[in-house]
Amino acid sequence: MNKPQQAIVLISCPDQRGIISAVTDFISENNGNILDLDEHVDPTDRIFFMRVAWDLKGFKIPTNDIKEVFQKEIAMKYVMSWNIHLSSYVPKMALFVSKLSHCLYDILGRYQSGDWKVDIPVIVSNHENLQEVADRYEIPFVYLSITPETKIKQEANQLKLLKDLQVDFIVLARYMQILSANFIESYPNRIINIHHSFLPAFPGARPYHSAHNRGVKIIGASSHYVTEDLDAGPIIDQDVVRISHKNEIPELIRKGKDLEKIVLSRAIYLHISRKVLVYQNRTIIFD
Amino acid sequence: MNKPQQAIVLISCPDQRGIISAVTDFISENNGNILDLDEHVDPTDRIFFMRVAWDLKGFKIPTNDIKEVFQKEIAMKYVMSWNIHLSSYVPKMALFVSKLSHCLYDILGRYQSGDWKVDIPVIVSNHENLQEVADRYEIPFVYLSITPETKIKQEANQLKLLKDLQVDFIVLARYMQILSANFIESYPNRIINIHHSFLPAFPGARPYHSAHNRGVKIIGASSHYVTEDLDAGPIIDQDVVRISHKNEIPELIRKGKDLEKIVLSRAIYLHISRKVLVYQNRTIIFD
Amino acid sequence: MNKPQQAIVLISCPDQRGIISAVTDFISENNGNILDLDEHVDPTDRIFFMRVAWDLKGFKIPTNDIKEVFQKEIAMKYVMSWNIHLSSYVPKMALFVSKLSHCLYDILGRYQSGDWKVDIPVIVSNHENLQEVADRYEIPFVYLSITPETKIKQEANQLKLLKDLQVDFIVLARYMQILSANFIESYPNRIINIHHSFLPAFPGARPYHSAHNRGVKIIGASSHYVTEDLDAGPIIDQDVVRISHKNEIPELIRKGKDLEKIVLSRAIYLHISRKVLVYQNRTIIFD
Amino acid sequence: MNKPQQAIVLISCPDQRGIISAVTDFISENNGNILDLDEHVDPTDRIFFMRVAWDLKGFKIPTNDIKEVFQKEIAMKYVMSWNIHLSSYVPKMALFVSKLSHCLYDILGRYQSGDWKVDIPVIVSNHENLQEVADRYEIPFVYLSITPETKIKQEANQLKLLKDLQVDFIVLARYMQILSANFIESYPNRIINIHHSFLPAFPGARPYHSAHNRGVKIIGASSHYVTEDLDAGPIIDQDVVRISHKNEIPELIRKGKDLEKIVLSRAIYLHISRKVLVYQNRTIIFD
Repeated sequence: MNKPQQAIVLISCPDQRGIISAVTDFISENNGNILDLDEHVDPTDRIFFMRVAWDLKGFKIPTNDIKEVFQKEIAMKYVMSWNIHLSSYVPKMALFVSKLSHCLYDILGRYQSGDWKVDIPVIVSNHENLQEVADRYEIPFVYLSITPETKIKQEANQLKLLKDLQVDFIVLARYMQILSANFIESYPNRIINIHHSFLPAFPGARPYHSAHNRGVKIIGASSHYVTEDLDAGPIIDQDVVRISHKNEIPELIRKGKDLEKIVLSRAIYLHISRKVLVYQNRTIIFD
Repeated sequence: MNKPQQAIVLISCPDQRGIISAVTDFISENNGNILDLDEHVDPTDRIFFMRVAWDLKGFKIPTNDIKEVFQKEIAMKYVMSWNIHLSSYVPKMALFVSKLSHCLYDILGRYQSGDWKVDIPVIVSNHENLQEVADRYEIPFVYLSITPETKIKQEANQLKLLKDLQVDFIVLARYMQILSANFIESYPNRIINIHHSFLPAFPGARPYHSAHNRGVKIIGASSHYVTEDLDAGPIIDQDVVRISHKNEIPELIRKGKDLEKIVLSRAIYLHISRKVLVYQNRTIIFD
Repeated sequence: MNKPQQAIVLISCPDQRGIISAVTDFISENNGNILDLDEHVDPTDRIFFMRVAWDLKGFKIPTNDIKEVFQKEIAMKYVMSWNIHLSSYVPKMALFVSKLSHCLYDILGRYQSGDWKVDIPVIVSNHENLQEVADRYEIPFVYLSITPETKIKQEANQLKLLKDLQVDFIVLARYMQILSANFIESYPNRIINIHHSFLPAFPGARPYHSAHNRGVKIIGASSHYVTEDLDAGPIIDQDVVRISHKNEIPELIRKGKDLEKIVLSRAIYLHISRKVLVYQNRTIIFD
Repeated sequence: MNKPQQAIVLISCPDQRGIISAVTDFISENNGNILDLDEHVDPTDRIFFMRVAWDLKGFKIPTNDIKEVFQKEIAMKYVMSWNIHLSSYVPKMALFVSKLSHCLYDILGRYQSGDWKVDIPVIVSNHENLQEVADRYEIPFVYLSITPETKIKQEANQLKLLKDLQVDFIVLARYMQILSANFIESYPNRIINIHHSFLPAFPGARPYHSAHNRGVKIIGASSHYVTEDLDAGPIIDQDVVRISHKNEIPELIRKGKDLEKIVLSRAIYLHISRKVLVYQNRTIIFD
């Protein structure tokens, strides 16, 4: 089915009376048909959040002018932070990997089968072993080894590469390097990581070992946007699986891998569907 | 905390441009502050559903006139089916039970602790054994034994009792009698049942025996509004728990009881929070 | 159904060849019929754990002599730590509560309906408000107010009371006081607490506030044996429920209460069913 | 890590005293070290089931003679149905697919990364479009179109192919053809299917449409061994995911795909780990 071209606007602003009316009137009066509307108000800080998707067929404002008109007629009045996304644009996603392949395979299977509207211009790795997976899917693979000494230089190379390829967002598919603050600032809320624990439990290294040691009865995985604080960025999705005393660490790793790949892929899907807003280190998910 | 008095309006009507604006404008212009808004459009039949809650403090229209004004100014124009609920009204819930007590205990604990804004004017049963539980909570208990011969007469007695007590809705807390079509028609979408299976699997009698026999790996419970078709009414909530080959039928019953009481209580909470709309034998849950 | 009287033996010892044979032979040769057997070997420390339940009907060794004979014939040889439990014994459980009633109601409903083979000789509280719940169920309620100044003295009073009543184990049903090391040592692995988070995330006070602040997408509850380290004892069971950005703290508390009471009651059931062994601050659950 | 070579024996027989002793003695006395033991007794039919894994290093009986000795010394005495599996053998798994690729990608990713000890000698399909996926992983792809007229003949071709390749078991990875009774009988309890519903709800075609129509709040997927009755064979594993009224059929399909692939892969893992026994159309899972 050929989906109609849509516009999606994501808004946040101080809560005031009449915002919903103003936005929906703007769309209706310009002959747009609202396909989906979801809103949320943070009751503590009185911040208003909204996602509206509408059909652009027959919309009176030319696509190229929507931004300007919306800014002038609506956004300014309500002091909105906002973004508009057109469903016709295919975002560019860079994959960062190290040695583990399960998340990479999961992403490439979805990409290849056309489940996601996304381009993957590059796979970046600090190890060589997943080159053959990239080759199998004919995606450029860039190996940039990283040592404490070369880290700054290699991050600069990574950033240049991402800029050259006009990458929109980055997915750390079990990439086992900590990104510098400088790198992260270049892609705020646009780097998605998967951490193999139920955050905030067991941040950092070897969470399955810690989970086993603590004797938890459920393990989890968490996808989040990367911020300067390790494994402390806004959580996009989490999921869990029940374990028992019988499960030694290799079993936790085996069960956890299934969680990791699914939770990471769900986060990517939410991101490219423009269903995520970040506020105060938390996410609003318009699902 | 003393919650402000709220009005909640539940709406369904053919989808048209401008409905959201019309409703939110109506509230805003009359000085109402929207506390919660959720909407849904059935994309197949193009039916629009909305739940809006607003603070009545400072609302310009007197509470007693809201219905009339809303009907005239908004509802008529959009051909709405609608209902307004005031948070100040305490709904009256009748409990129907048979011999099993776990759902009854769960409901009474919540009621007694003040978790729910609801009155329980009566517990009706076709068995005597739960009289002592009702006594413990000082709630009138009416025993009406039912045999094939007395069923019609006793249902008439039940209906008269419910009418006298001005009961708003009925909860079948593991009530082991099938209600007649006549009875059900008196309380459309206002009789909540808990069925001890993951519907539509295992409707009717002895679902845990059937689940064991079929060798399922997960069992469930389903709360639904009662319709004339047995266990086929609109589902409000469901939940599941994992089982294994080790679990014989008594274990399924034991594990299932926890599901049943939680799923039933969640349905009651959704119902009294006015978060449920029914359309085409399905529920829209504004959660 | 009148269950046959059973004996349950819980064993831990260094792993050696032939243990299972030795124990099952002991039972078989004395005309005992094994009803359930579950074993586990910790592969790191090579420790063997086993739970065996057998029917005592026709068992050749008189019930009163089983301990002595088993110790001499089996346990000594394999250097076992072990315990034998007879299904005829009804354990005595003391409940400690503060102001919140949901776990208490859940426990009392199960107790009253006969779901658990347990006695509740006393409810102890540092507040008076749940007296009326205890009265409703005709269970002695002992109010012992606790201030920093009176804590040591009151704990001594609690311990004396528990001893006088021959209490076997204690359940902290949202008891909001931290027990002293001295108190805990009197009931090692026999004090069950419910913590309202997914441990080890959010130990200590106000976990729902922390969960909301961190923006997690799933909240949990954990039952565990109390040790000197706060919320760090061996976990018996955990469970979780999905939340969203829409759920403010009162919603987390409301949803969490259902988790807490179910997870605590599951832990109590496992404990009185003699299905829990503790090793290295972890539990082995013979489920 | 080079795992020691293990033997795994799966046993079922009428329950009798002394079976566990007999088997564990057999292993211990021949210098085998038991790595894992799990047993179950069906209490209704008094059937005993056991899985024992032991280290073959130092085992006194030569590997090639184990079967014969075990049969003579143990199995005959207890009238056992039994099978022995050596961890050194790599089972051959044939994949049957149609047009949907998500399960296929999931299986091939695990296979390629070495997560499973299994060979895939062939992918069979009644459609051509997944040829390119097979090529990507360099696995022989056999296209056998099926019409009502050619079905019998093509099944004969499939069976011959499977026999020539010495295939041990078959995985239907969303293969959209119903196998004939004749075909199924050739691989009893060795054909694993994934059905995209929570069985026994919604067997047969278009379960997501049925689920949407029924208004369920949770959807599921079920892996099972194929028997002559459609979607009614022994269930190996099931899992579920929560949905809402917002999720139209394409969303159910999207969410369901993640369930399907994970539940199918878990079943395959259990099968190749020799952790499944079938009795009375139910599975015993030694997990």
